[in-house]
Amino acid sequence: MPISLGELATRFGCELIGDPDIEVSGVASLSNADSDSLTFLSNAAFKEQLSSTKAAVVILRPADASDSPVAAILHDDPYLCYARMAAVVCPPPAYAPGIHSSAVVDPTATVAASAHVAPNAVVGEHSVIGENVYVGPGTVVGPDCVVGDDCRFIANVTLVRAVSIGLRGLIHPGVVLGSDGFGNAMTPEGWIKVPQVGGLVIGDDVEIGTNTAVDCGAIGDTVIEDGVRIDNICHIAHNVRIGAHSALAGMVGIAGSTTIGKRCVFGGTSGATGHITICDDVVILGGAVATKNITKPGAYSGMFPAEPAKNWAKNVARFRRIDALTARVKKLEEK
Amino acid sequence: MPISLGELATRFGCELIGDPDIEVSGVASLSNADSDSLTFLSNAAFKEQLSSTKAAVVILRPADASDSPVAAILHDDPYLCYARMAAVVCPPPAYAPGIHSSAVVDPTATVAASAHVAPNAVVGEHSVIGENVYVGPGTVVGPDCVVGDDCRFIANVTLVRAVSIGLRGLIHPGVVLGSDGFGNAMTPEGWIKVPQVGGLVIGDDVEIGTNTAVDCGAIGDTVIEDGVRIDNICHIAHNVRIGAHSALAGMVGIAGSTTIGKRCVFGGTSGATGHITICDDVVILGGAVATKNITKPGAYSGMFPAEPAKNWAKNVARFRRIDALTARVKKLEEK
Amino acid sequence: MPISLGELATRFGCELIGDPDIEVSGVASLSNADSDSLTFLSNAAFKEQLSSTKAAVVILRPADASDSPVAAILHDDPYLCYARMAAVVCPPPAYAPGIHSSAVVDPTATVAASAHVAPNAVVGEHSVIGENVYVGPGTVVGPDCVVGDDCRFIANVTLVRAVSIGLRGLIHPGVVLGSDGFGNAMTPEGWIKVPQVGGLVIGDDVEIGTNTAVDCGAIGDTVIEDGVRIDNICHIAHNVRIGAHSALAGMVGIAGSTTIGKRCVFGGTSGATGHITICDDVVILGGAVATKNITKPGAYSGMFPAEPAKNWAKNVARFRRIDALTARVKKLEEK
Repeated sequence: MPISLGELATRFGCELIGDPDIEVSGVASLSNADSDSLTFLSNAAFKEQLSSTKAAVVILRPADASDSPVAAILHDDPYLCYARMAAVVCPPPAYAPGIHSSAVVDPTATVAASAHVAPNAVVGEHSVIGENVYVGPGTVVGPDCVVGDDCRFIANVTLVRAVSIGLRGLIHPGVVLGSDGFGNAMTPEGWIKVPQVGGLVIGDDVEIGTNTAVDCGAIGDTVIEDGVRIDNICHIAHNVRIGAHSALAGMVGIAGSTTIGKRCVFGGTSGATGHITICDDVVILGGAVATKNITKPGAYSGMFPAEPAKNWAKNVARFRRIDALTARVKKLEEK
Repeated sequence: MPISLGELATRFGCELIGDPDIEVSGVASLSNADSDSLTFLSNAAFKEQLSSTKAAVVILRPADASDSPVAAILHDDPYLCYARMAAVVCPPPAYAPGIHSSAVVDPTATVAASAHVAPNAVVGEHSVIGENVYVGPGTVVGPDCVVGDDCRFIANVTLVRAVSIGLRGLIHPGVVLGSDGFGNAMTPEGWIKVPQVGGLVIGDDVEIGTNTAVDCGAIGDTVIEDGVRIDNICHIAHNVRIGAHSALAGMVGIAGSTTIGKRCVFGGTSGATGHITICDDVVILGGAVATKNITKPGAYSGMFPAEPAKNWAKNVARFRRIDALTARVKKLEEK
Repeated sequence: MPISLGELATRFGCELIGDPDIEVSGVASLSNADSDSLTFLSNAAFKEQLSSTKAAVVILRPADASDSPVAAILHDDPYLCYARMAAVVCPPPAYAPGIHSSAVVDPTATVAASAHVAPNAVVGEHSVIGENVYVGPGTVVGPDCVVGDDCRFIANVTLVRAVSIGLRGLIHPGVVLGSDGFGNAMTPEGWIKVPQVGGLVIGDDVEIGTNTAVDCGAIGDTVIEDGVRIDNICHIAHNVRIGAHSALAGMVGIAGSTTIGKRCVFGGTSGATGHITICDDVVILGGAVATKNITKPGAYSGMFPAEPAKNWAKNVARFRRIDALTARVKKLEEK
């Protein structure tokens, strides 16, 4: 959506250095930008690209303003300012209201008139779809779900049953919400399934990445609070609660009945075992797995970085001999 | 489904303390239960919630019976008893037989008259769908598949081709069965695909969790034996065999041509490398990866728990100096 | 497809020992083969099965030729030769051109006359589908995609938007291409989404396994070069570049903005953190995570194999005392 620099600067209360009538209609990196592009300089590593940028305007810190060869919008956090302005310049696609003829909506479901139900989508019994919701192609909304206004299910999403999701949810393809948790009781003849009858309650402004699975509760509900961000291919087991504004990067696994506080961050391929509680403001770094309650905010880690395979093999061998080494030291001490 | 306590107790041969005419119509936790609810006390940690429960009846151990403020069903394994009774109180949904008008069933396929094929499902050439099977919305059953009676494919499941699945299978959304394994032969010009022409054979009473992938065999079959339970986002590669009644928790990966025994348990994010054999009754604890044959039943582990990041960084640095430390100890010993 | 041994040997320039008029119509392992089967002996571990094989013909090394009880095709790399011949004997299924009546193709899309669009597939605005492409059932091709000739999307695949894929791509079920990357800017009120407006460019001869996710770029493009092989349940984040002929085994995760060279191999459940560069010809072994730039070809590792749980617990405890142990050694040295 073309917009003038003057309008952008005014809307977000930023200082603009340059012609307010210049328009931008897209975004680009410093090096790829052209005269219609909004770009930004946040990471000092890219500073060398500033002098040759062909952008219409660069969002940057006041201290960098004089180095911009083109118009500049000043902000102390250029990346955040970019996020906000880019959402105006490149808004998500708009869809005409209506239900495609190939979609199947159960007669007991309620779909707001402003919602868009795309080809081959399915909406089940007693489900309620709010205003301006986008139910993308191939998406299945099962029975007894409540979808808040302005949610978007991009494509091939599945809400199994009894999922409640708040306002402005953004759910990417292949996500499955409200599937059965892994509940099994052992018998001499094998496993007996424990019926999974709880729900899944998702707050407002939640984004869930591609092919992530969030199970329903076993008896009570699984809960994802407001503002949570979950990346691709994560596994959120039954009865988990994830506190508001927490963020989980790709391939994170949270085992059953674990409670995660607010504003926590889980790095890629990290996770938590079941039945533990993690307090607010904890960072679990990439690859680490929390295995017991964490009561103190801060960063936790547990991953060994890859090393040349020869070194690693030696280290593993030595690791296995720490025990013997300790005994040798003890013997020396006794002398 | 409302059922009287007397009927429940009789059906499962349990002692009931209380009025046999009381009916339950749902399940709940001790603390959330109301006068229609069946609940249970299994884990001692929840014992303090017993005295204030508002449930219709609590399943508990005989030793706890006198502490129940409401009716009690006695069982030495309350969780197992709960699993069985909950399945009666909260049975899976029933579906009217028939093929939805938006589903596409190939003329060469055979669908039992009692089966339900949901909106936008697809059944391919020469496939056979058994009695009472539920083919959920968006599910694709490819060609040459055989689906046993009472199987349920919740939604958006894919059976690629040549998948055979026994009785009472429960397959959750996003699961892909019988996809090509990862077979590539190296050439100077790059990889050449090795055709994956084997099948996938799944036994009776198997449950497979959301977004899990089970590949077909390269030449022979991949095999999942009776009673196996697989959680969400697991990867079962080509030619794997998983023994009866084994259970794999979330995000487990089993590499190609590995054989896993009966009654094995894999914790979350654990796994096994390819071409190994793991005997019956092995437990691979969370995060651990079996890398060679295991011939002795028992528990195996290999994950470091997360620690405060500062400690961890020190440990990693020291780990890398074990070699040097060993040399120093040797030097001391030589003196 | 039945084919004579003479034709096979001639087509691939191999020496045949045996009757050239014998026909094969399938492939099988040495032990399961029957008189219509092509099989091979590559791994010496299977040599003992050679003498009793009932195959029509065995592909094997010249040195093993005299041990074959049946016809033999000679090749120095029997597995590679098998891959090529099996592709002739067992070609992928052929599909009649046409768009199924239940598929939904946007009027602004272009679908080649030789392409096959299967039941309940969707093709979005302005997308272009090349010659002989197979758009499998339930597949959603979003807007502004370009699909090269001979691509196959098996079933329930999603191309979100602006995905370009070259010739002969093979994309397995549940794969999501071009979904939003995980871009969030922190504010005191929570996360602000950074619009993900880049594309995804995939080269020729790329295969992507079941339920893998490949994100679009944040501003520029995510790039998968020619001949790349990606196995099941992998996560390729935004702005990643994967060099030609690299191969990623199951459950690999590559974090954002990382560049991987040509002919790299990632073992199962391995990965790379974000914003790093890995040079050509690097092998990251199973379970290892590259955390910084790698500039030297070779193998890198970082996983501890599972051990009996008792040993492991002792080792972990001792690992945590390396620090103290080092101090004790220092003290001894000072004496």
